[in-house]
This record gives sequence, C-alpha cells and structure tokens, in this order.
Amino acid sequence: MGRDHGDGLVAIAGRIGVVTSVALNLTVFAFYLRGRFFGAGAGAGDKEAGKKVKKAAAIAPSYGKPPVSADSIINLDHGDPTMFEAFWRGPMGERATVVIPGWQTMSYFSDVGNLCWFLEPGLEREVRRLHRLVGNAAAEGYHVLVGTGSMQLVQAALYALAPPGGAAAPISIVSPAPFYSSYPAVTDFLKSGLYRWAGDANAFEGDEYIELVCSPSNPDGGIREAVLKSKSGKAIHDLAYYWPQYTPITHMLAHDIMLFTVSKCTGHAGTRIGWALVKDREVAQKMNKYLELNTIGVSKDSQLRAAKILETVADGYERQPAGATGDASLLFHYAQRQMMQRWRALRAAVTASGIFSLPDEVAGFCTFAKDTVTANPGSGRTWKGVDCRELTMVYVAPCRLTP
Amino acid sequence: MGRDHGDGLVAIAGRIGVVTSVALNLTVFAFYLRGRFFGAGAGAGDKEAGKKVKKAAAIAPSYGKPPVSADSIINLDHGDPTMFEAFWRGPMGERATVVIPGWQTMSYFSDVGNLCWFLEPGLEREVRRLHRLVGNAAAEGYHVLVGTGSMQLVQAALYALAPPGGAAAPISIVSPAPFYSSYPAVTDFLKSGLYRWAGDANAFEGDEYIELVCSPSNPDGGIREAVLKSKSGKAIHDLAYYWPQYTPITHMLAHDIMLFTVSKCTGHAGTRIGWALVKDREVAQKMNKYLELNTIGVSKDSQLRAAKILETVADGYERQPAGATGDASLLFHYAQRQMMQRWRALRAAVTASGIFSLPDEVAGFCTFAKDTVTANPGSGRTWKGVDCRELTMVYVAPCRLTP
Repeated sequence: MGRDHGDGLVAIAGRIGVVTSVALNLTVFAFYLRGRFFGAGAGAGDKEAGKKVKKAAAIAPSYGKPPVSADSIINLDHGDPTMFEAFWRGPMGERATVVIPGWQTMSYFSDVGNLCWFLEPGLEREVRRLHRLVGNAAAEGYHVLVGTGSMQLVQAALYALAPPGGAAAPISIVSPAPFYSSYPAVTDFLKSGLYRWAGDANAFEGDEYIELVCSPSNPDGGIREAVLKSKSGKAIHDLAYYWPQYTPITHMLAHDIMLFTVSKCTGHAGTRIGWALVKDREVAQKMNKYLELNTIGVSKDSQLRAAKILETVADGYERQPAGATGDASLLFHYAQRQMMQRWRALRAAVTASGIFSLPDEVAGFCTFAKDTVTANPGSGRTWKGVDCRELTMVYVAPCRLTP
Repeated sequence: MGRDHGDGLVAIAGRIGVVTSVALNLTVFAFYLRGRFFGAGAGAGDKEAGKKVKKAAAIAPSYGKPPVSADSIINLDHGDPTMFEAFWRGPMGERATVVIPGWQTMSYFSDVGNLCWFLEPGLEREVRRLHRLVGNAAAEGYHVLVGTGSMQLVQAALYALAPPGGAAAPISIVSPAPFYSSYPAVTDFLKSGLYRWAGDANAFEGDEYIELVCSPSNPDGGIREAVLKSKSGKAIHDLAYYWPQYTPITHMLAHDIMLFTVSKCTGHAGTRIGWALVKDREVAQKMNKYLELNTIGVSKDSQLRAAKILETVADGYERQPAGATGDASLLFHYAQRQMMQRWRALRAAVTASGIFSLPDEVAGFCTFAKDTVTANPGSGRTWKGVDCRELTMVYVAPCRLTP
C-alpha cells in the first residue's frame, strides 16, 4: 500500500487532486505514458529499459503481481518501493544476507535492561551509526524505539502525546494540507477518545493539538516545518523520506519525535521495520507501552535483517568494499541516480501528454553528498486541469488516465 | 511479556488472585521453591538439572537476561516460551534455518490476488497443512489472515465485529473470569468508541456483545466455550494454547474466528507471527483493513521463517527424517514431555511449600496422540490462602514469595 492507500487517500484525492506515489509507480507511469502518447515506435533506450523491466518481473519473488508491459494500467492508489531491488541484487546484496537458525530469537525479549526491551541491540547500533553517517538526524541523547513500520510508530506517538483518558474531548490531530493520505484514516479508524483528526493545520484554531509534520512531504515532496507554534502544542516529525536519494540533506534535525522506516531508506518495505528517535524518556516509555499492547513488540527476525541491511549500507560508505565499482556499493548515490532518471522520464512524458503538471524542480546543497543536488521526491502530486474532484484514484485505473 | 503483562494484569491479579504464566517460569519457579524449601542439600537429579539450566543460560542469545540460578527471583509478571529452544537446537533445528538474501521480500505485497495481500503463500500453505495434521481446527473453507502475533489479530477482530461508527454506544467486550490479563488493557487503551471492556461474561446482561473465548484458558488452562448465547452476540476464539503439548485435542474446532500464534505452538515468540482462521469473507476483509491501517501488513521475513518452522514441524511427523531418534523430530511429543516434567516438578514443590495450591490434573483422549493424555496447561493460576488482593505481581518479585 506504500504510503498512499485506502479510503483516506480517495477522500483526499477527491478534495485536493490526484495524488501519485511517484517513487513506486514511476516506471510504469512513464512507460504507460510513452506507450500511449509516443506510440509503438519507442526509441532504443526505451526498448532497453523495457527489457530490464521485463527481466526484473520474470525473476520477481512472491509479489503475485503481473509483469509490467507497455500496456500496463497504472495503479495510482498505492506504490511499492521495489525500485532499489537491483542494488540489492548487486555486489552488496550478498553482504546483507541473513541466516536465522531454528533456535534463534525465540524469546520475547531482546534486552531486558533497555526501555525498549524488544529492540535488538544490533539494530539500535546500526540506526545510530547510519544517522551519524548521513547527518540527517541527531541520534545522540535520543531513545531509539523500533516499530512494525513507521505508521505503527505514528500511532504510538499519538497515544503517548495525547492527554490520558478523562480529558473532556479528544485532542486534535492536524497536518498542513496536502497531507499524507493515510493520516486521517489511521487517526480515526478506531474512533479513539484520546485523539481525533482535525484536518489542515493551516486552518486550525486553538492551542491544544498534535501536528503531524511529514518532511519531505508525502504527497508533494516539499520540505516542511511545523506550521503551528503554540507552546502547549506538540509535533511528530515523520521523516520517512529525509534521505539523500530524495532530497538534499541540509540540516541535522533534532526534533522531539522523529520517525524513519527502512521501506523508504533502503527499499525493504516487506520487512516492516521503522524506528523512532525520541528525546523525552516519559514519552518514549508511553510509546513503548503502545507497542507492547498493540503487538507485544516487533519481529526480531526483521530487526536482525534490518540491522544487517543498515550495516551493509554504512559499510558501503565507510569500508570501501572490494569488487563494487561506481555507485554499486553506495546505496544513496545509486538510489539518487535512479530517482533522477525516473523524474527525468516522468517530466518528459508528462510534458508530452499535456494532461498533468508536475511541481518545479528544487535544488539545494546536500551536506551528505557535499554538492548541490536536485530533490527527487519519493512521492509527487499531479493535477488535472479541471474538476479534480472527479478524477480520484478509483477512476484513474479503469479509465487508463483518459481525461 | 508473554501473554501476561502490564497494568491490566496487576489490576486483575489484585481482584482475582495471583496469576502465574507457568509455561514460562516453571523451571525457575520449581528451582526457586526447591532451593528455598528443600535447602541446599539438593539431590543428584536437581544438581543435574541445575547444570543444564546453567549451560542453557550460558549459550543464550540476545535476551539480555541474567542466568538462572537457585537464588533467582521468580518474575510472575510475565513469561517467555524459550523452554522449547532445546528442541530447535536438536536435529530438526537445522532444517528450520532460513536464509534471506538482501534483495528478497522488499515489496509490500505477497500475493495481490489474495484477500490478505501481505500473507506469504508459503505460510498459508503450512498453516493449513499443520491444522490438517493436528486436527485441532478446520481450515478448509476458512480465510487465513496473518498478524503481528495473535494479540494484533484480537484487535483486528474487535474492529471487524464492532458495529461501524455512529452507533449510540461502544459494544461491550466480555470474557468469562478468570480471563487473560491483557484483554481489558488491549480493549481499552485507545478508549475506542467502537468497543469497550465490560468484564466477566458470566455477569453480563444484554444481547449485544463480543465474547473473547480463550481455550485452553489463560490463566487457568481450562477448556472453555462461549458462555453467552444471544443470537446477536459474537465470539472470538483465542486458541493460542490449543495444541497437543498443552491439552488433549478432543475436537476439530470450527468457530467463526479462531486465533493462533507460533509463540505458543512452536515457541517462537520473538518472531511475532499469529494467524486467524475466519469463516466470513466480509469479516476477514474488515480484519485485513485493520492490519493495513495499523501496520501496513506483517513482516515478510518472519512469515517466511514461520512457514519454514511449521513446515519442519509437519515434516517431522510426515517424513520421518533420518538421524532424529525418540521425540527429537516430533515437536508436540517433545514439548508435551517437557510440560509434563515441569508440572510434575511444580506440583512437588508447591505441595511441599504449603503456600500455594494448583488446579487438579485433567486428562482426556487426544485424537492427535491417539491416547489418553493429561493436560499440561501453558499457564496456571495459584492462590494464596488469604487476602489475595495484596499479593499482586508487583509485590511477589521483591518479597521473594514470602507470605
């Protein structure tokens, strides 16, 4: 479901336009548009790329998905970050292999002395190491919590920050529009008495709220800061896309609660591992309580695997492994190149189609790349010229993007 | 945290007595009581067993727990099913090893054609095969859903069965006392407007409710059926302990919603994999929706591992592997022997102590073992003679069981 899914998305798409999770569908999108608007006579480059897509589909593991072709219909409802799979099939992939014997990780516990007693020490170590390497977030002095993906951690943070029961009314959860399509659904689906979705942060009036700040933003890739500034208000920073392949790293962020996920960082969505950096001990304890009650901790197998994957990424930069040339050992460089190529293809196709528009390119100095680089948002938003409300995800797929 | 943890447990322990998750702490418990009540002059058998415990502790993986000794303090707050680890270190363990290369299971999806699109086909196959082998639950004609442990599936089922929003009042969630200590906390921690904990099913009056039926019951190991019979009432059967090592398998159950977990079936608690067998398609869809919104599916790494483990268990019975003698290839037989030995040790120690009492032994004909066998509950309940309310989990640990 990528980070765009469900009723929430349809509702928002209806209101604000057509939301496309670009990172996930970009290839299909570009190929479809090319197939449709450039006709069958695709250039040599297209054919080459088409072969690659076909080959990847042929050896795809258990997605259960049909192979991608020029006639594929674009599913804008959700995405799937398998675009980095080729990197992990390269020379670094073998280093990231995990072997788990039958007797391992049987216990509920990973470290009974840790606040987050189900967090594998190896994962915590590699999370801190990766943030030091990339410089995108301060991890020192922060508690590390692990979640089943970062959306579970969003819910843990809402639980931790909301005033405990007995309050007169649930606290308002807001986010500046256009916001990530799952936020309203995830906030409201259990009709919690602790918190309630209150929509666009820009339109919110009041001092008591929790603001969800998604930066770079899903859906539009923009860099965001909390728009509300009340002293009693609280913020949760969802930084899933704050990695060098999506955006220049301009600051080492140090917010109270910062959320990340391997699905966007390394492309391992199926592993369902997210993590939170939490400044305040009491908040971290309450978030941990949520994770205990909700799922009694987090898969240790996936934690061991995520630790190995993050270790491999950092090793690729810090230990210059033999046998890997170009960016084959440098995940962020490889991934940035992929994203750039896809955005280029998308811009060309969209311009030719005349149906959609795309946000302008943004560049900035990246402290990690030590260079000025273009942002390649992991998600993007496109508009149809008129009557966007009708062109929701539900209609896009069957009508094959016909206006 | 086993299946006994948190504020809920303390509250219930205060009301109904001292709850012990026996499966998890039985060794420690028996050794502590022996050490305390039989003095330092332990027999040769005790010494031998003591050595084994020490050896196991020395090679323990990353629990972060101190080694067990005769001076260990019993933590009755929770348990940890690592007692089957020795089986998985035996000849069958190697067969259960999984190897996951860096490029595998990156997608969110496992089978886009399945109602539960994040369920690995291999896990579904092995779940169905195991139920056919053991004969404890009908899987044919049922939808299989996977969860991050079975407690997530309890919450998914509450969400699916509760009347959708807009209802005048949240539906009542009940369970016959003594009930599993986490049920109230898990039901109420988000103060959902969809459902609310209403306590003992035996004391409930009304027609609209969801009854949680835990059988064999945690905490007392008893075989349970739904106590409420209203036509409009609904039941969720939590069958975590309905495996041959804990109780005779007397019926192939065929309830509307049946929940299981590898943590109690094979001992792999850290893997966090549970599954649901659901009769009604619409209910299965709503449960799936919960899993999508809560954690966007379930770790594929853990699913692959759970599939391999269940496959190994079934192979042990159906393919008679070479090199495994006695019950070394037969998980349920091995585990039943372990449980029986521990209950025997516990009964001896408890009788000698005079402080606690234990439930009477129950036996029945097991269709799986094709023999009359004694139940060896995975959890047990003990009472202090007087003023149980004071002897909650909180006090037991520091006071070393001193009355």
